[in-house]
Amino acid sequence: MMKMMNEVLPSNIELDPLFNPKRVAVLGASENTNKIGYLQLKALLDAGFEGEIYPIHPTSKEIGELPCYASVGDTPEQVDLAILCVGIHQVEKCLIDCGKSGVKAAIVFASGYSEIGEEGIVAQNRLKEIAEQYHMRLIGPNCVGLLNTTNGLMGTFSPGLTNVPLGRKREVGFVTQSGAFGVLTYIAAAQHGLTFNYFVSVGNEVDVSFSDVIEYMLHDSKTKVASGYLEGEKNAAKLRKLAKFALQINKPIVIMKSGRSSAGSRAAASHTGSLAGADKVYDGFFKQAGIVRADDYDDILSFSKLFLANKLPTGKNTVIVTSSGGRGINEADRCESYGLNIHALSDKVRKEIEKNIPDFASASNPVDLTAAASITNPELYLAPLKVLVNDPDTDIILFPEFPIHWDENTPLLQEFVEICKNSDKFVMISNFPLKGMSIPKGVQYLEDNGIPFILGDMNPIRSLAKLVDYAEAYRKAHKISDGPARTELDVSNIRHLLPANQTLSESQSSEILSAYGIRTAKRITAKTEDAAVQAANNMGYPVVMKIDSPDIPHKTEVNGIRLNVQNGQEVRQAFKEIYGSAKEHCPTADLHGISVQEMLPEGVEVIVGVTSDPTFGPVIMFGLGGVFVEVFKDVSFRVAPITRQDAIDKMESLKGYQILQGVRNKKPVDQEAIIDVLLKVSRLIEDYSDIIQEIDINPLIVYEDGIVAADALIITK
Amino acid sequence: MMKMMNEVLPSNIELDPLFNPKRVAVLGASENTNKIGYLQLKALLDAGFEGEIYPIHPTSKEIGELPCYASVGDTPEQVDLAILCVGIHQVEKCLIDCGKSGVKAAIVFASGYSEIGEEGIVAQNRLKEIAEQYHMRLIGPNCVGLLNTTNGLMGTFSPGLTNVPLGRKREVGFVTQSGAFGVLTYIAAAQHGLTFNYFVSVGNEVDVSFSDVIEYMLHDSKTKVASGYLEGEKNAAKLRKLAKFALQINKPIVIMKSGRSSAGSRAAASHTGSLAGADKVYDGFFKQAGIVRADDYDDILSFSKLFLANKLPTGKNTVIVTSSGGRGINEADRCESYGLNIHALSDKVRKEIEKNIPDFASASNPVDLTAAASITNPELYLAPLKVLVNDPDTDIILFPEFPIHWDENTPLLQEFVEICKNSDKFVMISNFPLKGMSIPKGVQYLEDNGIPFILGDMNPIRSLAKLVDYAEAYRKAHKISDGPARTELDVSNIRHLLPANQTLSESQSSEILSAYGIRTAKRITAKTEDAAVQAANNMGYPVVMKIDSPDIPHKTEVNGIRLNVQNGQEVRQAFKEIYGSAKEHCPTADLHGISVQEMLPEGVEVIVGVTSDPTFGPVIMFGLGGVFVEVFKDVSFRVAPITRQDAIDKMESLKGYQILQGVRNKKPVDQEAIIDVLLKVSRLIEDYSDIIQEIDINPLIVYEDGIVAADALIITK
Repeated sequence: MMKMMNEVLPSNIELDPLFNPKRVAVLGASENTNKIGYLQLKALLDAGFEGEIYPIHPTSKEIGELPCYASVGDTPEQVDLAILCVGIHQVEKCLIDCGKSGVKAAIVFASGYSEIGEEGIVAQNRLKEIAEQYHMRLIGPNCVGLLNTTNGLMGTFSPGLTNVPLGRKREVGFVTQSGAFGVLTYIAAAQHGLTFNYFVSVGNEVDVSFSDVIEYMLHDSKTKVASGYLEGEKNAAKLRKLAKFALQINKPIVIMKSGRSSAGSRAAASHTGSLAGADKVYDGFFKQAGIVRADDYDDILSFSKLFLANKLPTGKNTVIVTSSGGRGINEADRCESYGLNIHALSDKVRKEIEKNIPDFASASNPVDLTAAASITNPELYLAPLKVLVNDPDTDIILFPEFPIHWDENTPLLQEFVEICKNSDKFVMISNFPLKGMSIPKGVQYLEDNGIPFILGDMNPIRSLAKLVDYAEAYRKAHKISDGPARTELDVSNIRHLLPANQTLSESQSSEILSAYGIRTAKRITAKTEDAAVQAANNMGYPVVMKIDSPDIPHKTEVNGIRLNVQNGQEVRQAFKEIYGSAKEHCPTADLHGISVQEMLPEGVEVIVGVTSDPTFGPVIMFGLGGVFVEVFKDVSFRVAPITRQDAIDKMESLKGYQILQGVRNKKPVDQEAIIDVLLKVSRLIEDYSDIIQEIDINPLIVYEDGIVAADALIITK
Repeated sequence: MMKMMNEVLPSNIELDPLFNPKRVAVLGASENTNKIGYLQLKALLDAGFEGEIYPIHPTSKEIGELPCYASVGDTPEQVDLAILCVGIHQVEKCLIDCGKSGVKAAIVFASGYSEIGEEGIVAQNRLKEIAEQYHMRLIGPNCVGLLNTTNGLMGTFSPGLTNVPLGRKREVGFVTQSGAFGVLTYIAAAQHGLTFNYFVSVGNEVDVSFSDVIEYMLHDSKTKVASGYLEGEKNAAKLRKLAKFALQINKPIVIMKSGRSSAGSRAAASHTGSLAGADKVYDGFFKQAGIVRADDYDDILSFSKLFLANKLPTGKNTVIVTSSGGRGINEADRCESYGLNIHALSDKVRKEIEKNIPDFASASNPVDLTAAASITNPELYLAPLKVLVNDPDTDIILFPEFPIHWDENTPLLQEFVEICKNSDKFVMISNFPLKGMSIPKGVQYLEDNGIPFILGDMNPIRSLAKLVDYAEAYRKAHKISDGPARTELDVSNIRHLLPANQTLSESQSSEILSAYGIRTAKRITAKTEDAAVQAANNMGYPVVMKIDSPDIPHKTEVNGIRLNVQNGQEVRQAFKEIYGSAKEHCPTADLHGISVQEMLPEGVEVIVGVTSDPTFGPVIMFGLGGVFVEVFKDVSFRVAPITRQDAIDKMESLKGYQILQGVRNKKPVDQEAIIDVLLKVSRLIEDYSDIIQEIDINPLIVYEDGIVAADALIITK
């Protein structure tokens, strides 16, 4: 991680011919209005593309008043970008032509590739080979194309994209793994006054991937937000690196990730594995990386609008100023449901506000100016604002409605803007949508001055809460020295303790944890009753006895555990019973003996685990143990390796975190010890991710001072 | 409750003059376009009100081409409804005039009453007296009025209401406690093709209340859904009775209740009291009563549209049929997040669907027909439908998009409709909203045939999930014999055990529970060490010892509890320590002695409590005990008295319900015993609600067989 932090990411200028080509060839250009070759050419012409356009057609001499060429090699000047509007059977030939003539990049719309199975995969691999052979960058296949709305590069045939009027501001980029969903998002964005500067449908990602486009947008100075719709990331390590860079340069990555529910529970030997539904891991990864997770397409739009105000909220304390009690209560409900805080105003602040509002108005939060503000005295809106901008307890000031007839020439609005501009408070206006109502006059003036105005048919409060989280992540990334990512551990090589493809016994697993400095319960494996009694005598009573066998990972199921064994006689009795029961349930198991262990005092049970995620590689889980993990699934995930801050966030994000802080007259537990174990486990999996598949430390018992692993399970690949 | 069930609610024809007046007088009618008397008169004329309109003005002879009268007593025929467009200082005089001349109902717009405090309350009470004296029903004051859109009764001056075009269907009534929020909801409804038949802004509810209007709508045959916006119900008992009636006649009550977050934590002596945030109690009440809780205004609209399809979903198993993989995944995410089930289709069903769709399409759920359906072969939409209508596992079929150019003359749409009509499956279409796009042609045809079509800028899935819950509540109400509401208990009068305004000691509280047949831990209060030893010897060791004092409700805080006391010597020791500590911490407390109790074996700790809610009266809480209640606040509330089914629902609605069913190799606990305690507590509070303020039974320990109250606290009024 330290390495990543200091790494300067190279700009990926390789993608530049895709976004900023000087000369574009349209292969399959046509005058037949039903053909995509016609729609594509028309789109470029209508959009006034700034560069040269070469229609390519085997026989036509002219299409759309442009001279036409038989092949991409025949054009008067070297083509930068080729757009293939041809059917699947011509794609390969055309692509080779492009390669031969030095084309730098291409878009392939045709479908019928990996999405249809075996046969398609083979064809798609051939495209990949051609692209690699000629060093061409490729978008698609099976995509709706690429747009750069700042230079008229309308690289698409989709009427859903080409017929949308362009907005004034174009500073948000968007990349999508679903063409259909992407088009809908593009349209919705435009309807809310947001035009993406770049729109990229990556299709089957034969070459240019989702994260490649994110990377390009991060490096592009004209892009202020990099957003996308993601179904599954193929290169999570890259996305993680990009996210770190994005936080450094304060350019948010906003992703709508679908498939929250589809993962289901996977069959897994370890507890950790079975809890790691793909979405929980994505959620942990996004939080860890500071990526903003959009819940729906509208989150992308409203988050972007809020971010473009160029002011990050200083915290989550929010004051609502309204002219209707009902609206105020509703907005307060909404704010609190998304985690914003509607704080009580101090007496001082309340009294100051009261000086300038009518008696029947309320200066509590939500501030209710009554209909007096909306109908007769709009200057009332300024009264609380003037006080609140100086209130140190307030971070955000929210106006759920606002005089819609005010414009840039209205002195009151000018004053409003001046007050906001000279303050660090985040001021936002959200109006209820009235269809057919023209957008209020003052909107542009407000937005130009850093006051976002969001129509209420979006969910601006949800996005505002996300901006607050982003601001927090940004501050953390810039404030905190992240601490050593690699725990300073003097560990010797323990590879010999890790045989391949095995479920290790508790003793074997504990030995590995011990080697990494994690304290485990004292234990001796006894092969005979006498040895067990001897061990227990030495250890001191009471003791715990457990079957020790790599073939019995779930010891309770075979009745293979005795707690609170009090004396030698009970040790003998337990030895016999456990052995007998293990033999009966698992006649073929390799029994190493009976493990005699110290009986640990009561403490708070937690669980730490590692599982190998198909997307992210090793991920580390932390949660409260016992019924909390089984019934409430109160666990959180982070991708390995983790930093100290990751470990803290992970711990604090539990619903039951309060239990670690001490409840019901109990003292707080040793949270530093938990962080230490998490970092040591992170180091262990970093060192041996090639061989370790899963780890369960369950329960791990935390005390006021110290922590001990009471049981452990490691599974190797 | 039994009494309620059989009660036939009388129709409240008293409100009829408000909704269906034959002759309406407009007091304060004016030709000055700035006056509300002008706006009101114009609204009635423009809407083509079906009855007579009499402008009333002291001097004018004619207004708006209508003859004008000096007083409401001068009109040629008896006025049914008077609309008072006069200022606050004329309201009383005008109202008395109305009363004297036999007017049956009136609307008062003027504000300046209870909403401004003391002085306003006095004035408002005078209006109440006048209304009562003359038997007039009154809407307002401080309201925006009343609309009946089926007869042109536009009883409002608000341009927000009068300028809205009316839709075709008018079968949903709406009553609001916030004028501003109500107007916005009315407009939004119209924008989505829904016109309320009745719109009532009840203002300060001096006479006609929120629930009065709900009652009227339930009795009105033209209303199919009774909806509203509620800030606080003043007559919860009435609303409960109405809700029961509504379920019987299958007319849903849909309420958006605001103030989810505003309650905060109230200071309360009992645990139950401090957990009963007003919203949790409302939530429990709505579930118990079968009232649909709208999360936002759009829920009212889309729920209503779904209900008007006249088909209740048979369950929550949902199949999504789409032409885009991305849309399908997203819709599945949304469905599952609201509790619908995207079930796996059986092999048989999948194979049947596969017969009629292309190879590259997917017959899994979500069914992905690919762009082939949306672009070239729309008949594909019918292929899965034909199979799914016969699938017993499927309840709901969802089309997130649909060919928008189909209309009633399209044979494919006709076939689609025929298939749906002959099936019990709930079929719904939800399209993404494209602003400026005209509403698809086939919508009306679909809706007329019971297939709702909801634009995607609402949240149709959330509302669909609520319809599924409503259908479940409806089925329960009609299927289940609700069992005796009054637990059959032979209880003697225990009023002498309930002194007023006291915190009872554990012993006193336990005695009351015992009288109601709830088993409590055996206990003897000892006044001396000797007596304590004697008691413990008789009871058998180990025992528990606790300070017994009505002045010390929180015994742990004064170190007043000893668990696991093993012998006589320890009893003496504990006696001294507890007494000493109590004396030290609470020198003035009335110490009854030390309670010696049986040490109960381990079981699952739960908590049962009662608190007196300002709105609902006694409400009963149930939750898991210990950290579950303290950290996770995993509790549910129901309004007393509760039925057996309420008790079951309450128990099953816990997040940690699984713990009662048995986890981690534990057997399930005695759920019947829990239900029994809940019903006995319900009976207790029903019998003594006049004197009992709060009850805490915490912990109540449940075993595989049986249940014991280990501690109890009762507080009287």
